[in-house]
Formats: sequence, C-alpha cells, structure tokens
Amino acid sequence: MSRASPTAVVLVSGGMDSCVAAAEAAQAGFRLAFLHAGYGQRTARRELRAFHEIADHYHVPGELRLVCRLEHLSAIGGSSLTDPGMPVAAAEFVSGRIPTSYVPFRNAHFLSAAVSWGEVLGAEAIYIGAVEEDSSGYPDCREEYYRIFDRLIEAGTKPETHLRIVTPLIHKRKSEIVRRGVELAAPFHLSWSCYRENEIACGVCESCVLRLRGFAEARVEDPIPYRQRLSF
Amino acid sequence: MSRASPTAVVLVSGGMDSCVAAAEAAQAGFRLAFLHAGYGQRTARRELRAFHEIADHYHVPGELRLVCRLEHLSAIGGSSLTDPGMPVAAAEFVSGRIPTSYVPFRNAHFLSAAVSWGEVLGAEAIYIGAVEEDSSGYPDCREEYYRIFDRLIEAGTKPETHLRIVTPLIHKRKSEIVRRGVELAAPFHLSWSCYRENEIACGVCESCVLRLRGFAEARVEDPIPYRQRLSF
Repeated sequence: MSRASPTAVVLVSGGMDSCVAAAEAAQAGFRLAFLHAGYGQRTARRELRAFHEIADHYHVPGELRLVCRLEHLSAIGGSSLTDPGMPVAAAEFVSGRIPTSYVPFRNAHFLSAAVSWGEVLGAEAIYIGAVEEDSSGYPDCREEYYRIFDRLIEAGTKPETHLRIVTPLIHKRKSEIVRRGVELAAPFHLSWSCYRENEIACGVCESCVLRLRGFAEARVEDPIPYRQRLSF
Repeated sequence: MSRASPTAVVLVSGGMDSCVAAAEAAQAGFRLAFLHAGYGQRTARRELRAFHEIADHYHVPGELRLVCRLEHLSAIGGSSLTDPGMPVAAAEFVSGRIPTSYVPFRNAHFLSAAVSWGEVLGAEAIYIGAVEEDSSGYPDCREEYYRIFDRLIEAGTKPETHLRIVTPLIHKRKSEIVRRGVELAAPFHLSWSCYRENEIACGVCESCVLRLRGFAEARVEDPIPYRQRLSF
C-alpha cells in the first residue's frame, strides 16, 4: 500500500456505474478505498459479492474496504427496494415520474459515510457513479446536488480536510458509460445491476432495462447472463 | 395522534440541548416524531434510556419513535467517543482546538436519517439542538452548515417535499438554553449529557462541564446527580 498517492473513497454499489467510477479513480492514480452500503435492499447479498469481486480486481486491501449497514433506511421504508410490501415495478423511467424504487435521500447517507471515512483516512476525493440523465428521475442524482454537498463538506469538516466529490459519469448517457468502461477495462463481468434477483438478472426491472439498453446502444455485448432480454 | 398538526422530526440524543429542542417543537404545536441515533458511543445505553423517557414525557407514540444504529460511525473511528483506544479527555473547550470527541461529519448522518424519515412522514420541519458558541469547536454545529443543508434537502428530495431544519438554540449560550428550558418546562431531569458514564454523571468530561457551567450561570439547580461537581 503506497502512501505516496492521494486517496479516493469510491462508492461501490456493485452496479455498472460504480464499476466505471472505480475504473476512473484507478485511472486517475488514486489509492483506492472502497465503500459499500447495504440498506436492506432485496439484492443486498448479490451486490455485496459484486463489491468484493470488483475490489479484488483492483487489489483493494481489506483495511481499505468498508461495508456499512444502513438498516434504518429499510426501517424508514417508502421504497420498493426495501419494503417487501411494495412490488418492484417494471421499467418506469418512461413515465417521467419518480419511480417506486426511489429511496428518500439515500445518497446523502452514502456520501456522509464517505466523508466521515475520508476525513479519517485523509482522503482528497470521493468518487460516485451518479448519472443525471439516465437517473430515472431520482432527485439526488443531479449535479447541482453534488455541488451543494461539496459546500456542506467544506463547512462541516476540519479546516485541514479538503474532500471533493467527483462525479465522472454525471452527464453521460448509459451507452457512453459502457464505452468509457470498455476504454478503461472496467470489469463489467463482475458488476450487478438487477433490482429483483440474486442469481440471474431479471432483464425487465428498470435497472436491467437501462443497462441492457445502454449496452445495446453502445454496440457492446453485456457479459452477464439475463433471464430475459428485451430488444431495443 | 392528530393529523391536523404538521409534523416535526426532532433529533433527540437525550442530552439537555435536544431536550430543549423537543420542548421548542412541542411549544410550536407540531406533532412530534422523535429520532435517536446510536453510533457505538460509550454512553449509548444511557442516552437511549433518556430518549425514551423524554419521548414518554411528550406522549410520542411508538410508531413516531425511530432509533437508528449507525454502527459504521464506530467502525470508521477517529473519535474518543467511539474508539475504545482513545481516552475521553477532560474538558478541552478552553483550548480552541477541535476536541478528541469530534466524530467526523456526524451530524450529516443524523440529518440524513431525519430527512429520509421526514419525507416519508410528510413532515415540514427537522428540529436539532445544535449550538454554535458552546459547541466545543465542532465544525458541523455552525449555522452556515445548516443553511447549506437546507439547500441540499431542497435539491435532493421530491418536489413536493418542503422540509426545513430548525435550530432554535444555535446562537444561545448554555445558560440561556437552561433558562429557556425552564420557561418551556423541558424535562431536564430525564436528560443525559455525560460522555463517560452510564449511571452517575462524571462531572468532569467536557459535556458535563459545559452543562454544569450553564446551569451555574443560569442560577438553576441541575436536577441530575453527579459524581463530582466543579465550582464555577
């Protein structure tokens, strides 16, 4: 573990966007610290496996992997991702409404953990694979949100802490993220995006549909298996 | 439980400041929803008891009490409140430095939970008993920080959500908080401030010293017992 490189905390859900965000942080030469947050979502176990496999791929040592259990997000409810009583709808992104999978103010919990850990590690950057355009309308995936969070970090941490949030994918379309991932040799085969299943991706939930459409538009073969593939 | 009144989420640590913040929210006529966050701090058990006793005092029903376990704050470390290897120093507030009890970016975790829950409840306000002047130099107790957080909430929640953070004590001295608490009949006898002990307050940690000095300056008797009382 080299202390010469500055450290970046990378939020790694295990999905394709965070996989490419990790590849961007690696490309930029940072020492990588991977943070994963489980919050009682249906696919928590599968996402955690993807997290560790992507971390193995980038040789992230055990002491620079942090897994947070934000069980209270599940207790708070309000989302089909955490509430067993709410079905995960098929792709809703065409509706323009905020989908049922929206977890209220979720990214603030993840970023807060990244800032707390980043301050202790003396890190300089937090990488998050948030995407504005393909974000299904989640309010906390917009660039404005992250720039306000930067100001919050500056106001709420020690004077010697200078942590900035890096959002390398924020203005990219899913197909552009696929192409960029290919350029960076991001390990897409280890990533997991499905909101419904833990073994074979369903291919029809909003997350699967966005992913499959992105690969199709980029004319790249998605390396993971699906139960069902819609054609685009 | 009346649905006629708007709802306020009150962050209730169990300490004297949050006790008065709860009294302010009650006085303002809100339906009260109490949120408590344990984060592996030494006095977690005693603070949780104070939380429930203050909630009982204000007749907060069980479904409007939320206890979050933010164990990852303990895993992240960096504070004498959560790291068994770091001693809790005696009062350090005279030094002007950030004390060892500082938990990096802690309040953002609490506020994020309050926003997530508040959005699900349809609440209009979040009450927090943060105090700028007597804050021991914690960066996340300054008014500027809360005004930036207000902007983050506006940017990161649904368009129909309008939650504002209310900081009724932010510019008060500890003695003024004591006097205001007496005016509002806040149940100080149920509150707990000590950072070290779970049975009888130590009287010498920074939190005890700030509290005892506040009561002394307000010429009010602190109703809880102490192992040791410094004179002011």
